[in-house]
Amino acid sequence: MELVAIGTVESPLRDRASAPKQGDEGAPEAWLVFDADVAEGLDGIAAGDELLVLTWLDRAQRGVLRVHPRGDPARPEQGVFNTRSPDRPNPIGLHRVIVISIDGVRLRVSALEALDGTPIIDVKPLLRGIDER
Amino acid sequence: MELVAIGTVESPLRDRASAPKQGDEGAPEAWLVFDADVAEGLDGIAAGDELLVLTWLDRAQRGVLRVHPRGDPARPEQGVFNTRSPDRPNPIGLHRVIVISIDGVRLRVSALEALDGTPIIDVKPLLRGIDER
Repeated sequence: MELVAIGTVESPLRDRASAPKQGDEGAPEAWLVFDADVAEGLDGIAAGDELLVLTWLDRAQRGVLRVHPRGDPARPEQGVFNTRSPDRPNPIGLHRVIVISIDGVRLRVSALEALDGTPIIDVKPLLRGIDER
Repeated sequence: MELVAIGTVESPLRDRASAPKQGDEGAPEAWLVFDADVAEGLDGIAAGDELLVLTWLDRAQRGVLRVHPRGDPARPEQGVFNTRSPDRPNPIGLHRVIVISIDGVRLRVSALEALDGTPIIDVKPLLRGIDER
């Protein structure tokens, strides 16, 4: 099960210490910069769309199975699968964003907590009600 | 970027033709069977919890960049990143489920459209409001 990068995040966020834990906790706008060879896969995405972006959190630790939620030592340890910790066996980030603008293979998106240089591995539309699918 | 399987789906669904396109379109209950070496990562998950399960859709085609939405030839082709098609460069399935019961490393979950034998790659809690995190 080998992932391929389909693009990269361009963000002012450079390290974990300065990044908010979730997008809606003050994360900045960012660019999703896609590789030219997957450009066709973006057809139909428009400004205003809500997307789920999946990333590979390449600065996470994969050997971790228990963490203090939100890194707060006052909170009892939990299994990583019961938290949103980036540290987990497969460090996949899941980010809900809104497309602000599109410039070729570059998508400007709202509040994204992923760090600069993070590989993008998938993008999915937010799932609507059954009648609208 | 090499994924490790953390478990496997046990489901009555055997092939894509018989599987609903989304969990809420009539998918059956299923078991998530985790590997013993990640059992600690499940600590804190309880019956009634809502989870996001990430799977590796091992019967998907990775070379596809455009599809007819929902496989319906009457609908114009779209880029795969604007659809929930399993066929895409990194065939990661994203499933929202409710935990029905827990038996050691086996979690019984509601409506899951993943096929029997599908590798599980991650589990995350549904994100609550900022005040509850």
